[in-house]
Amino acid sequence: MTVLTAMLDIWLDKSICSDATAKTTVVQSIESILSTLSLVRQHDMETPDFHVLFYAAPSLQRSSVVNIYSSGFTTITIEDGSKDSPLTNQVMEELKQKLKKALQTRMERIPLIKRGAPVPNYYTTSDERILEYDFDKIVFESDSKYQHVKILHSPTLGNCLLLDDMQNLAEKDINYTRGLMNYKQMCYRDKEILILGGGDGGLLHELLKEEPKHVTMVDIDEMVINACRDHLRGACGDVLDNMAGKNYEIIIDDCVNKMKEYIEKGRLFDIVFNDLTDFPISSEHQGGHWDFVRKIVDMSMKLLRQNGRLLNHAIGVSCPSSLETYEKLLKSLPVNVEFSKHSDHVPSFMEEWVFYEIRKLE
Amino acid sequence: MTVLTAMLDIWLDKSICSDATAKTTVVQSIESILSTLSLVRQHDMETPDFHVLFYAAPSLQRSSVVNIYSSGFTTITIEDGSKDSPLTNQVMEELKQKLKKALQTRMERIPLIKRGAPVPNYYTTSDERILEYDFDKIVFESDSKYQHVKILHSPTLGNCLLLDDMQNLAEKDINYTRGLMNYKQMCYRDKEILILGGGDGGLLHELLKEEPKHVTMVDIDEMVINACRDHLRGACGDVLDNMAGKNYEIIIDDCVNKMKEYIEKGRLFDIVFNDLTDFPISSEHQGGHWDFVRKIVDMSMKLLRQNGRLLNHAIGVSCPSSLETYEKLLKSLPVNVEFSKHSDHVPSFMEEWVFYEIRKLE
Repeated sequence: MTVLTAMLDIWLDKSICSDATAKTTVVQSIESILSTLSLVRQHDMETPDFHVLFYAAPSLQRSSVVNIYSSGFTTITIEDGSKDSPLTNQVMEELKQKLKKALQTRMERIPLIKRGAPVPNYYTTSDERILEYDFDKIVFESDSKYQHVKILHSPTLGNCLLLDDMQNLAEKDINYTRGLMNYKQMCYRDKEILILGGGDGGLLHELLKEEPKHVTMVDIDEMVINACRDHLRGACGDVLDNMAGKNYEIIIDDCVNKMKEYIEKGRLFDIVFNDLTDFPISSEHQGGHWDFVRKIVDMSMKLLRQNGRLLNHAIGVSCPSSLETYEKLLKSLPVNVEFSKHSDHVPSFMEEWVFYEIRKLE
Repeated sequence: MTVLTAMLDIWLDKSICSDATAKTTVVQSIESILSTLSLVRQHDMETPDFHVLFYAAPSLQRSSVVNIYSSGFTTITIEDGSKDSPLTNQVMEELKQKLKKALQTRMERIPLIKRGAPVPNYYTTSDERILEYDFDKIVFESDSKYQHVKILHSPTLGNCLLLDDMQNLAEKDINYTRGLMNYKQMCYRDKEILILGGGDGGLLHELLKEEPKHVTMVDIDEMVINACRDHLRGACGDVLDNMAGKNYEIIIDDCVNKMKEYIEKGRLFDIVFNDLTDFPISSEHQGGHWDFVRKIVDMSMKLLRQNGRLLNHAIGVSCPSSLETYEKLLKSLPVNVEFSKHSDHVPSFMEEWVFYEIRKLE
């Protein structure tokens, strides 16, 4: 079923709360709007700082709450589960305009929220702004040992991988992979490359087109690899069909373990990609998010030849303080580095994403 | 002030509605979650098809409604206007996980809606999905004779023009202008060009870099032009500082009138751009949206030399049926045309947008 939640916000004057007559007039205006939806007042509660009114039309499976705050700011929230609901953005705009005329004050309408869809469609940007997708089919969903793995289909994005309900990669996200690669700015020919994470296979698939000497990919979660092999072929092609090829190898392991092993053995790479999810799922106990980030950067530096590059994704351009923290971290490394950043729009993130290229200096 | 609205959705079994004991158990689980936010049941109403429960914590300026529908689908909506609100997406996720454990059924969390911000941040995509922007300043706001004109500032998009609360152009939207121009695929050198609309000046500014013979731009709304000249310079540069230059002219008029006049005089162009808003604001009485679209295309064809091009923006890729209707319209024109489409992501639309190039055949 679909349930619609409609929201209107009203900036009333602060004085409304201390003026009983004025408040009654406002409430009457609101009630006359709600009555067009058959909503009738059932209950209300008042303190000097807050007045909340509850409305319902039970036979229509409809309810509403009006909250009047001490600042004068007032919200109307309507929820409708009726078949053939009369609520549309257009209708709510008309109600808003009517009420605005009556109250002569600033009003805003929040677009309808659609609840009860068979496929979950609400997620957030990196700075926690709400995003609504057009996902229409659950293609895969299961809990692995490490995380919740989900692949959803969208008519505009293709299949899209979500890990713990965070958008990871969609079939239309070639921009993400090329952003991470700093595409056409970096040369991968004959290079020895290590990918940390990357279980969706998108990066490995694109890298192999550049004729590297060898690519080693280490991902902890076999379920992600299997699900993407079957359902994300628009991104990974056939690269996950085999765990090894003439110039690549896929290892299922915690990349922190593998990096330790490579450091002990003195193995070196020309390029390391950090394509891990934003939050650590390493089997080892980790400190906070930034401790994990620093650890990965530190270990990557030990695995790079002089002049080698670490490439990683960061976060949306709307999170400047996170980017600043990351750059401070890079400047405080025990080895000398030079770094640059660039950004590109990633369709499934619905935002502009920032990528870093970090060069280990002589 | 900031008021937060939090939403949780629960897929209960349909049988819940006819089983009083089972329903009581579910309600108790929900109430134990709500009680962690000091929310106490104040009122409830029940019909065979619908059960709605109202909760409040008035001293904390907090309220909540639980709607249990006949399908078993159940929604929890919490609104909090308290200073230092405890509601965060993280906290809501924890509440969801607790409740999911108790109820053992599918649950979804909708990210927090932030109400009461000084700058309105909620708009929609072309298929009415909710979008939340990071606008932080109202730069300009006024009603013109024709529409509500607003310019908002965003740290990630620059200043952004909204007409009747529809996103039009942001300073970071060079992709829109280049999409409309079919950039680098079309040659504008020495061409005679007509722009219908385009009051933001972005298209005119980019076109003049291509050394056309002459550009005539006809926009109905002087307020838009003046506001963009002052506040959208990242898109229009200095092109709106003067109403005419060595190879361009800006005319304030209804483009339908101007097109009629040009058709009567037999004036012809190499290229016509339709850069009008999606909904007609022509002074002339118009039929529906599609009648207006057809009229503009028809008249544009009359103004084009043989082999001339009409270029226009269409809508988001998430609206395939609108695109189909438009293509049917193009195929039913009284003149022979050939058309192609392409698409690009427009930052301020937060979606992939479709553009058409229509060639008038011999």
